[in-house]
Amino acid sequence: MNYAIGIDIGGTYIKSGLVNEKGNIIYFHQEKTYQDGLEPIDAIYKCIDNILSNSGINSTSIIGIGVGTPGTIDVIHGVVDYSSNLKWEHYPLKDLIENKYHKTTRVINDANAATYGEFLYGGHGKINNAVMLTLGTGVGGGIIIDGKLFEGNLGKAGELGHITLILDGLPCGCGRAGCFEQYASTRALVNQCREALKSHPESLIHKLINNEDELDGITIFKALKQGDKMTAQVLDRYIKYLSEGIMNYCNIFRPDAIILGGGIAEEKEYLLSKIQSYCLKYHYGYRHTPKVAILAANLGNKAGIIGAASLFLK
Amino acid sequence: MNYAIGIDIGGTYIKSGLVNEKGNIIYFHQEKTYQDGLEPIDAIYKCIDNILSNSGINSTSIIGIGVGTPGTIDVIHGVVDYSSNLKWEHYPLKDLIENKYHKTTRVINDANAATYGEFLYGGHGKINNAVMLTLGTGVGGGIIIDGKLFEGNLGKAGELGHITLILDGLPCGCGRAGCFEQYASTRALVNQCREALKSHPESLIHKLINNEDELDGITIFKALKQGDKMTAQVLDRYIKYLSEGIMNYCNIFRPDAIILGGGIAEEKEYLLSKIQSYCLKYHYGYRHTPKVAILAANLGNKAGIIGAASLFLK
Repeated sequence: MNYAIGIDIGGTYIKSGLVNEKGNIIYFHQEKTYQDGLEPIDAIYKCIDNILSNSGINSTSIIGIGVGTPGTIDVIHGVVDYSSNLKWEHYPLKDLIENKYHKTTRVINDANAATYGEFLYGGHGKINNAVMLTLGTGVGGGIIIDGKLFEGNLGKAGELGHITLILDGLPCGCGRAGCFEQYASTRALVNQCREALKSHPESLIHKLINNEDELDGITIFKALKQGDKMTAQVLDRYIKYLSEGIMNYCNIFRPDAIILGGGIAEEKEYLLSKIQSYCLKYHYGYRHTPKVAILAANLGNKAGIIGAASLFLK
Repeated sequence: MNYAIGIDIGGTYIKSGLVNEKGNIIYFHQEKTYQDGLEPIDAIYKCIDNILSNSGINSTSIIGIGVGTPGTIDVIHGVVDYSSNLKWEHYPLKDLIENKYHKTTRVINDANAATYGEFLYGGHGKINNAVMLTLGTGVGGGIIIDGKLFEGNLGKAGELGHITLILDGLPCGCGRAGCFEQYASTRALVNQCREALKSHPESLIHKLINNEDELDGITIFKALKQGDKMTAQVLDRYIKYLSEGIMNYCNIFRPDAIILGGGIAEEKEYLLSKIQSYCLKYHYGYRHTPKVAILAANLGNKAGIIGAASLFLK
C-alpha cells in the first residue's frame, strides 16, 4: 500500500498527516506556523520529520508530499509567487522540500487542496462536476471537472470569491470593487451584523458580547437561535448575497453539486434549506434544468491535508 | 477521409455544411427556418437531403450529423427541452433525424457548437482552456477545458450571460435581475445608447438614423468613427460592463484565452485594446498572474456548423 504526506499551511498552524489510499489520515502532526527564531519552512520540516520518524510507515512506501498553501502559486514550478501572510515572494517551496527529502512534491492552492479532498472523501455520493466555496475571511474555492481538480493556467483558476456581485460596490483586496467575497464571506456577515447593531439597541447580540470585536459567526447563530429578530433579518440578506453567487456558479458550470465549506457550514440545517429555496425560485431555466445539490462540507479542516496527499494517491 | 454534417439553427436561416477532418466546409446549403406550410424540422431535412444529393461525397463517408440549436437542450438524449423561438418543447430532435437518415446525431447548444468550432479552427494558436462569449441579443457562451467542450450536467453549463453584474439591477429574461447580458450584450449597448440620446440632441446619431428603431451596433460604431462624443462615453461605460464580466471569467477559469464573438467582434481593433487595458489594470493578482489573451472570433457564423460537425471528427 502507498501513502503520501499532506500538508496544510495555515496562518496559525501547519497541519500535516500521512494519508493512505482510502483517504484516511493514519498519522497526524501539527506545528505552530511561527516559532521563536524559526521560519514557516522550519515548521514544515518539523512536520515531515515527525511523520517520517513516528508514523511507523517505511519511507519507501511514502510516494510524495502534497502541500496546500495560501497565496498565489505557480503549480507547474511549485513556487509561491506571493503570500502576504507568510511573507513569501517567488518562494521555491517545491525545490526546498524535494532537495531535503528526495520525494516528489506538489504545491497547490489551499482552497483547491480542500476542494479535492472534500470531493474525493467527503461522502457526497456520485458526483462528477462540483464547485466548492469556502466561506471564511474571504471566499475561497475550487472546481472539479470530470472528477479532476481544474487548476487553470499555472494553477491560478478558482478565485471564486472574486466575481462581481455589485458593480462599484464595496472595495475588495483584489483591487476591484463589489466582489462576491465582500458580501458572502463569514467576515462580511460579521460586518453586516455589526452595521445593523448600530440601529438596533434591542438586539440580543448586545448582551452576548462585551464589545464589538468579539462578534463572530458563532455568536450570530447563537442570537438567531435565541430568536433575535435583527439577526434573522441580517441573515436573510446575507443568504440572498450567498445564493446569488451560488446561482452564478450553477449557471456557469451546471455542476452536480455545490459544496459549502468553512466554519459557517456547521450551520447547515439552517443555511442549506434557505439557499436551496432561493435557488429553486430563481435559477436559470428552472423547469428544464437539473437541480444542483447544495451540500455542506464534511471533512472540516482535514480536507486540505487529504486533498494535497491525494494528488499522489489518485 | 471522413466527413460530418454540421447544422446551425437560427431564427431566420438554418445553415448547414459538410465538414472535412480539417474543419473546412466543403459544401454549404441554407434554408429559411420558416417556410410556407412547413415546420423548422422540414427545413432541416431539406438541408440534409441537399447535402446528401449534391455534395458529391458518398453517404458512407459521412459519419454523423451535429446540430447546434438555441434553447435548453438535454444533450444526453438529444431532446430540445424548450425553445421559445422554435416553439419546441420536449422535442426529440436527435431521434427524428436518426430515424430518418440512420446516421448518429448529436444535438448541442448553439453557443457551445460555435465555441468548439472557433476553438478548433479559429486560428487562435495553442490554447488549451478557453472561454467564448458571444455578444448579440443576449450573451451566450461556451467553455473549453483541456481542449474539450465542457457541457456540465445534461449539457446545461455555459449560461455565461446569466451571472450577476449588478445585484437587483435590470430585470432579465432568466427570472433574475442584474445579469451580465443585460449590460454587455449588443442589445444592451443599443439600449444604453438610446437612453443617452434622449439627453444628447447634439449627437451625430440623430442624423444617421430616421427613427430610434433603426439604431444598431453598426450605426453606433459609425458615429464613434465620426467623432461623436456621446457615443464614445456610452461605449466607455459599455466596455467597463463587458470587461468586468470578462475579468470574472479570468478569475474563475484563468484560461489561456477569452474569445469574443458576435457581430460586435468585428470592431476588434477598438474593443480588444480597451478591454485588455481595463483587465490589466484591475485583474486579480495582476503582477503574478499569467495574462489571459482577449481575442476576437474569426469564423463568424460558420463556427456553429464547423463545431457541430467536429463533434464527430475530433
